[in-house]
Amino acid sequence: MKPINIGLMGVGTVGGGTATVLKRNAGEITRRAGREIRLIQAANRDVAKARAALGPDVLVVDDALQIVNNPDVDIVVELIGGDTIAKELVLKAIENGKHVVTANKKLLALHGTEIFARAQEKGVMVAFEAAVAGGIPIIKTLREGLAANRIEWIAGIINGTSNFILTEMRDKGASFAEVLEQAQQLGYAEADPTFDIEGHDAGHKLTIMAALAFGIPMQFDKCYLEGISQLDGRDIRYAEELGYRVKLLGLTRRTDAGVELRVHPTLIPEGRLIANVNGVMNAVLVKGDALGPTLSYGAGAGALPTASAVVADIVDVTRLLTSDPEHRVPHLAFQPDQLQDLAILPITEVTSSYYLRIGAIDRAGVLANITRLLAENGISIEALIQKGSVSDGTAEVVILTHRVQEKAINHAIAGIEALDSVAGKVVRLRMEELND
Amino acid sequence: MKPINIGLMGVGTVGGGTATVLKRNAGEITRRAGREIRLIQAANRDVAKARAALGPDVLVVDDALQIVNNPDVDIVVELIGGDTIAKELVLKAIENGKHVVTANKKLLALHGTEIFARAQEKGVMVAFEAAVAGGIPIIKTLREGLAANRIEWIAGIINGTSNFILTEMRDKGASFAEVLEQAQQLGYAEADPTFDIEGHDAGHKLTIMAALAFGIPMQFDKCYLEGISQLDGRDIRYAEELGYRVKLLGLTRRTDAGVELRVHPTLIPEGRLIANVNGVMNAVLVKGDALGPTLSYGAGAGALPTASAVVADIVDVTRLLTSDPEHRVPHLAFQPDQLQDLAILPITEVTSSYYLRIGAIDRAGVLANITRLLAENGISIEALIQKGSVSDGTAEVVILTHRVQEKAINHAIAGIEALDSVAGKVVRLRMEELND
Repeated sequence: MKPINIGLMGVGTVGGGTATVLKRNAGEITRRAGREIRLIQAANRDVAKARAALGPDVLVVDDALQIVNNPDVDIVVELIGGDTIAKELVLKAIENGKHVVTANKKLLALHGTEIFARAQEKGVMVAFEAAVAGGIPIIKTLREGLAANRIEWIAGIINGTSNFILTEMRDKGASFAEVLEQAQQLGYAEADPTFDIEGHDAGHKLTIMAALAFGIPMQFDKCYLEGISQLDGRDIRYAEELGYRVKLLGLTRRTDAGVELRVHPTLIPEGRLIANVNGVMNAVLVKGDALGPTLSYGAGAGALPTASAVVADIVDVTRLLTSDPEHRVPHLAFQPDQLQDLAILPITEVTSSYYLRIGAIDRAGVLANITRLLAENGISIEALIQKGSVSDGTAEVVILTHRVQEKAINHAIAGIEALDSVAGKVVRLRMEELND
Repeated sequence: MKPINIGLMGVGTVGGGTATVLKRNAGEITRRAGREIRLIQAANRDVAKARAALGPDVLVVDDALQIVNNPDVDIVVELIGGDTIAKELVLKAIENGKHVVTANKKLLALHGTEIFARAQEKGVMVAFEAAVAGGIPIIKTLREGLAANRIEWIAGIINGTSNFILTEMRDKGASFAEVLEQAQQLGYAEADPTFDIEGHDAGHKLTIMAALAFGIPMQFDKCYLEGISQLDGRDIRYAEELGYRVKLLGLTRRTDAGVELRVHPTLIPEGRLIANVNGVMNAVLVKGDALGPTLSYGAGAGALPTASAVVADIVDVTRLLTSDPEHRVPHLAFQPDQLQDLAILPITEVTSSYYLRIGAIDRAGVLANITRLLAENGISIEALIQKGSVSDGTAEVVILTHRVQEKAINHAIAGIEALDSVAGKVVRLRMEELND
């Protein structure tokens, strides 16, 4: 059979990795795909650098439009990132009847609904396994492997930078700032780490998974984001004493009232497998009504792991090139005319258990006041520990609550902070058992 | 689009679960598959029982041949098990041009090569996600998700019964016999548990995964099987002291000399995620050259989890009904003309680290003799602990070795057992780091 020609837009880390995998495993890939897959053209702003990375067999240009307009290119691989130029190029490629493979989570979380609609009209595929959790085939698992299930919820460790920082904070008792600096030196965190540590990256990935799980449009603007930069090492230690680990989780859950879509630091029982996912690794736990909980674990970033997903998509698209578009796996898992516009719940409507740390001026009555305020807001206590007086004359009270709506806990916290016997702000972290 | 008609052969636990999932999630499944999937006919020896389970909408017959010969049936689901009647029926269904979905690992591990060749000739699909690790989509991960990778090895906890027994032996310090009885009462082990506890079931599943990973024919007859029935609780405790957990692993690895294919109790470092997979749960760890290690975890058995995989296969086959057979995912991951006949290594040629427990009559010189025999066989020691004298006047020496060929350790063990100062047989368990 005729070889398949790939045009690559963006020759950075993942682009270089994709070229490496296509070359190194060419034999293995051809034995699987049934035809040769050739990288014929690449576009990169720095042409010389791309040429050095790709060798003499690949035509390198500086204008990516030449790729989407090249009649010899069957599949366009978009690894530029961002949602400006990349969006134009992807739409133009679709317009030209080309299939697209992309790792661009931001583009899809913000403009996926539009892009998939255009692809549907033109009968082309837009594959995006690499956009979520790097090389872990979680898109395939959600869209195909769990097709029999009513998916109930997803909880994912989907940002390696944050997970590395949290792992080090726990293992070494170091502060967020110290570990961030170390992560930057190791290349695990960007010079401006906001995108990773404030939950934006995880939010993009979660938005995509929620769309696939529940058959809803992409709604990143409604995703609640809370990062790890304000996390105090003390809370990681106290959580540990209570049998929990703190992870930055992306959580989405279908409830009668609507869909929860939220990224925040979360206490998880230490016995859960996902609580033991450490360092830069990623893992996604999905609860299906038939299968129960299933976890997928692996490298969520890096040149070769991400290329593994890009190339798997290329093989998939290659197999389906001649297929009838009506019978392909739908982009968003459900048939395009079967999407539902379920409401995304505001964070105040979400139900969770909570970890509270309260700085109490050490005197009689403070506990009674706190527990009274919790009770008045319908919040019951699962555990309470009091840490001995600290140097400034205050004690710390740590409370784990049962499940309650976030607005109730907010109201209780406001009341607690107003108490004379309470010093400073109450620290509040969400807690999930991940067992129902 | 026209509904797809399913004929179900075997209405036991998984058959009933399949009917339940198809009915309960009919809306969700249709939204994904783009057409209705209907169970129209079922065959079961006990017709009344099947009728009670399936309700009035499904025609129940006692002769499964009526299903494979029914012109209205598009997809035949084989849940009879075994490799006699099931084989005839599957071959007849293929002959009749029907697609087949099966959960029958024994059938495929023994006769898969023949069955897939016949399916290929007739242009039909034989899907078997449910044959390995129940509802975990590991077949899809191996065949499609990791298509870019040269797969290096697979290590799986793929028998829930054995994993439940090992978990309980560790948690409660109970003996194999005690826990087996408990497992039988809970329905986790059969009245005759041989198939599960002696590694046959795991061997079937491993054989299938090895074929998919390396593009080799099914060779269950060359799979080394060692179960858990001889495992002594002491060794689980000593392993624990040394930082290891004991799991029944299915292991397959590509080496320059050939393919390793083996099922046996294995010491794994306790920090590995797979070492923390407990109870009846399954997990498969796959090492790809691009992705690195990736783990898939979930329920490996049970009515609804297994049905999750059966129905996912039905949806896959439904989507591909009109596809060109040349472009489908090949049954064994690689194109049929691209299979390789790599040799399966005999267990004596396999390289592993080892755990040895030696009953030594407590007198000077015994350690010197043991270490001399190990050294003479080229075996270096990673750790050695001596447990104080036990009641019968012997001490126990526990040794962890570095990697060495099994025939060398066998030779050393024979020498050690011949020593006057050594009492009884040497206990030997294999040990894998699972990190390279």
